[in-house]
Amino acid sequence: MRLRNVKNKEEILQSSSYFISLFEAKENRGKWKKLFKNDNPIFVEIGMGKGKFIIENAEKYPNINFVGVEKSDSIIAKCLKNIVEKLDNLKIIQADALFIDDIFDHEISHLYLNFSDPWPKKRHHLRRLSSTVFLEKYEKVFCDMMIIEMRTDNLQLYQYSLISFSQNGYILNDISFDFHHDRKPTITTEYEDKFSREGLPIYYLLCTKKNV
Amino acid sequence: MRLRNVKNKEEILQSSSYFISLFEAKENRGKWKKLFKNDNPIFVEIGMGKGKFIIENAEKYPNINFVGVEKSDSIIAKCLKNIVEKLDNLKIIQADALFIDDIFDHEISHLYLNFSDPWPKKRHHLRRLSSTVFLEKYEKVFCDMMIIEMRTDNLQLYQYSLISFSQNGYILNDISFDFHHDRKPTITTEYEDKFSREGLPIYYLLCTKKNV
Repeated sequence: MRLRNVKNKEEILQSSSYFISLFEAKENRGKWKKLFKNDNPIFVEIGMGKGKFIIENAEKYPNINFVGVEKSDSIIAKCLKNIVEKLDNLKIIQADALFIDDIFDHEISHLYLNFSDPWPKKRHHLRRLSSTVFLEKYEKVFCDMMIIEMRTDNLQLYQYSLISFSQNGYILNDISFDFHHDRKPTITTEYEDKFSREGLPIYYLLCTKKNV
Repeated sequence: MRLRNVKNKEEILQSSSYFISLFEAKENRGKWKKLFKNDNPIFVEIGMGKGKFIIENAEKYPNINFVGVEKSDSIIAKCLKNIVEKLDNLKIIQADALFIDDIFDHEISHLYLNFSDPWPKKRHHLRRLSSTVFLEKYEKVFCDMMIIEMRTDNLQLYQYSLISFSQNGYILNDISFDFHHDRKPTITTEYEDKFSREGLPIYYLLCTKKNV
């Protein structure tokens, strides 16, 4: 997501009780239950953008802890402004996805990859969040059962991901090539609403793997 | 495929050197190498229709043995008429797919499921050639490595199959949601040509599983 620079973003980030810097996030590795002060499952969204999806989930499911990961401070500043209710079950981390295994140690239950960068050029495919580079990292962040849910408007990324998950031991539990038509989801991302309004299909998959 | 009744079909079938009845096919279980008089791999198409795909494959790849399986005698009669060259590597069996494991005993290398009946009603889903009913049978017909290639114009059958293969231990090796655009195949089925001419996308998958 590209955004104009947000004024006072540093101030917005530092004054927010939801915000966690990469440094603090690394410090919390293995200690997230302590930080959330409960044993509830942790659901992570990588690249949560302006946060509509994760904020609405946090509001709807108070017994699940939600963590958004986003590298851009401008986007995080926008996201933080969108949190209106007080939510004890939400944290926003500023980090590149490559650091995910420096942040969590077999602590998460569910991973959302919503409208990730499709990295269309072949030489960039390993940067896709469903490439083996990232799948190896995910093994280190998940508890015993790995559950990954992906939504994308990008056919190439979707096909690549179906094959990548399959070839790395994940089992497909659900797929849809027209998610909004087939499932009518109640919680959506900003991108999703935009694409859906434009009549574009949203591709969806949910896959699982036992983490041994 | 629905066809008008073919005149003299019984005569056409019985006089053809390519035709094998279900009874004879069962007799040949475990002895197909002997029947083909060589050790070449055996590729099977279930529901080969009028035979364009399997006949052209047999013509192009003389070192592979091809077997078409079809339950309708009228369709088989049409298919047999379409064989013009003499082909030592082609046989056509009249059988319902449910008998596949009575016909082969760990003898085949490759299975084609082209434009299979989509059985749209939920209560008929187990009749789909990618349902667990059939996947269990395929374990008994394949040699050590199981390779299944599927083409269909039916989105529901395709999505069902992706999940079914995945949940039964198959790994996706290739997929395309617009096979003709993405791969430009040289050998096609009659249906495929028709759908493709009409501008409809052809869904494709190739999946593999080690047969232990």
